[in-house]
Amino acid sequence: MKIVVLGGDGFCGWPTALHLSDLAHDVLIADNLSRRRIDDELGASSLTPIRPIAERLEVWQSLAGRTLRFVEADACRFDVLVELLRAERPDAVVHFAEQRAAPYSMKSPAHKNYTVQNNVTATHNLLNAIVETGGETHLVHLGTMGVYGYGHDEPVVLPDGYLDVRFDTADGREATDSIVYPPSPGSVYHMTKVLDAHMFQYYAKNDRLRITDLHQGIVWGTQTVQTRRDERLINRFDYDGDYGTVLNRFLMQAAVGYPLTVHGTGGQTRAFIHVQDTCRCIERAVASAPPRGARPRIMNQMAEAHRLRDLAALVQRMTGCEIAYLPNPRNERAENDLLASNDALRALGWEPITLGEGLMAEVTDIARKYAHRCDRTKIPCTSYWTRERAEAATPVAAAE
Amino acid sequence: MKIVVLGGDGFCGWPTALHLSDLAHDVLIADNLSRRRIDDELGASSLTPIRPIAERLEVWQSLAGRTLRFVEADACRFDVLVELLRAERPDAVVHFAEQRAAPYSMKSPAHKNYTVQNNVTATHNLLNAIVETGGETHLVHLGTMGVYGYGHDEPVVLPDGYLDVRFDTADGREATDSIVYPPSPGSVYHMTKVLDAHMFQYYAKNDRLRITDLHQGIVWGTQTVQTRRDERLINRFDYDGDYGTVLNRFLMQAAVGYPLTVHGTGGQTRAFIHVQDTCRCIERAVASAPPRGARPRIMNQMAEAHRLRDLAALVQRMTGCEIAYLPNPRNERAENDLLASNDALRALGWEPITLGEGLMAEVTDIARKYAHRCDRTKIPCTSYWTRERAEAATPVAAAE
Repeated sequence: MKIVVLGGDGFCGWPTALHLSDLAHDVLIADNLSRRRIDDELGASSLTPIRPIAERLEVWQSLAGRTLRFVEADACRFDVLVELLRAERPDAVVHFAEQRAAPYSMKSPAHKNYTVQNNVTATHNLLNAIVETGGETHLVHLGTMGVYGYGHDEPVVLPDGYLDVRFDTADGREATDSIVYPPSPGSVYHMTKVLDAHMFQYYAKNDRLRITDLHQGIVWGTQTVQTRRDERLINRFDYDGDYGTVLNRFLMQAAVGYPLTVHGTGGQTRAFIHVQDTCRCIERAVASAPPRGARPRIMNQMAEAHRLRDLAALVQRMTGCEIAYLPNPRNERAENDLLASNDALRALGWEPITLGEGLMAEVTDIARKYAHRCDRTKIPCTSYWTRERAEAATPVAAAE
Repeated sequence: MKIVVLGGDGFCGWPTALHLSDLAHDVLIADNLSRRRIDDELGASSLTPIRPIAERLEVWQSLAGRTLRFVEADACRFDVLVELLRAERPDAVVHFAEQRAAPYSMKSPAHKNYTVQNNVTATHNLLNAIVETGGETHLVHLGTMGVYGYGHDEPVVLPDGYLDVRFDTADGREATDSIVYPPSPGSVYHMTKVLDAHMFQYYAKNDRLRITDLHQGIVWGTQTVQTRRDERLINRFDYDGDYGTVLNRFLMQAAVGYPLTVHGTGGQTRAFIHVQDTCRCIERAVASAPPRGARPRIMNQMAEAHRLRDLAALVQRMTGCEIAYLPNPRNERAENDLLASNDALRALGWEPITLGEGLMAEVTDIARKYAHRCDRTKIPCTSYWTRERAEAATPVAAAE
């Protein structure tokens, strides 16, 4: 198949592009390299020494004998996107071209605006461009489990996107409907994924576009079968307070002897998936486009759910590290349960990788190997959801 | 009260600003005059001879003795908005600063992009700016009844925004919830109002903003108590295929001897409200802000519902005009019912004006008076929802 990977230079995009290329798909990466620029802005960088995209592609070519193409392109440029789709006529576009960190989206008013602007524009441009170029291209979007929200008043099993409800009709009967699960996003970033979801609903209805929205859990792990083949193919590993994902941060903190940063009580339960499985799920999504005229297909892309303090305890048992309980910068429930279906992806033959000490050790090994590259000042999270949260976290500043 | 009216030079914004000023509120209009520029783009213009904003304000000052202030400002400029709110510290911002025509939003890919860009950016900037300037300002947004969608499989009374549903819990019980009514927008324009709604939900939750979202029906009528006081205060009257609203178009077509343009079977049922009532509803919304921490207050701002062919027949009986049934450029159900609550606004003391021949004749009189300003070539609707709809409407072009 012919596949365009928008955002194919990023943490999930790069291993996915390699994985699809390894499966003999004809893959074009389109990326504006914004993630590397944001590293510069934050004065942060990947713990692992990621190489420039041109070098990555050369190494892959010489090692795997497969041509992985690249074009520097910004999905916020509609004309560029139309030209690209017109030239490629891809079977599928995998859409990672969004600002993906909740803390970064909450950093300042400008970061909120950037996240909304970039994510809404990229997604709408893509939908609009697919309509303009014939409408056949399958859009595979990376969404988040976070659109469901964390903490419901009633215990629910989060379905694959759609909830069956009953309501009263005007003539006093009970009717049923299958509705988009009522969203409850927990940050401006998560909110943009809700906006995406409603654009998908509209374009699937009006223009009969084929759309798959993958509600992904928190990604952990670093390497995949392909990125492991040569150090120059290594995937990025974010550990900073904005872009680092929680489990990778714990493992890395353990490796460098920094107390694990648990925000709040650690009673938050979250969904997780290994980066290798991100690739395998997308492989399956791409291979099975919904027909034109169908509603968007939503699939929960998560392997398992864990409470954060349990994860911290697990890493502590494994490494003997310390745990530091810090004020929570996020505006969220202190404790929540999370039960979710992943039936849709399992029905496509996916067998999830689950947490094991061996697997986690592998990440710790990476963290140890590159520990000398760590800037400990970048570890704390300094983005606050509200002024009140910021003041609670910095009592001195608040008292001044 | 101190009130900023964003988009206060437009069809609903101008009479609302006058109405609030007449009630002795301290009103500042902020508008980028985009609606006048779109007239230029379309080669269309208001049937009524609207005056430049500066002249409008001078006349109002000399006539009513009230200072209505104006600043040319674009809500898509975040810095401008923050500065404005910082200087004004308004009790309420009435937000009309959105591209409001469904056909215009469907005219071309560029028009789709413009509508999404403008509407999402303006709304998000405003929310973000209110947070940054203390969070007390009440946001009153003009939404649309169209977010509910037209045509449900079951007869429902559209509630004031929230639907009570029942669903199964993980432990096999039945739970209830009050959810945002599942949206089903019928154009890119309507879709942007759904995106707005989800941004409201988020900012009400995270930042405890006070938000009222008015789901308005199709506005008809031209004049209000204030705009009638001097011809130089006259409100705009759109009759073109993009911006003209259906009932006003019928009345105007009857006045100039153009067959009423009914698209499809005319079996579409829509909600209506007189422009005078737009002002009265907003008056009530502004006077009754929800408390901080409440969910967004949603109120259906509509007086009554009618089937379009019944409206055409009514105008025909009144004027003896002809009716032309044309292919429908919109992608929508041919026939639908519509029952909706307007309990929330009635509970605030609103008594809706309903259609009457006298009222309609007043619009016809305006249309007759300014008939010489009509450009009949601008009457047909030339925006199509899909390629198929365009081809159905222009069989010759399609056959070529």
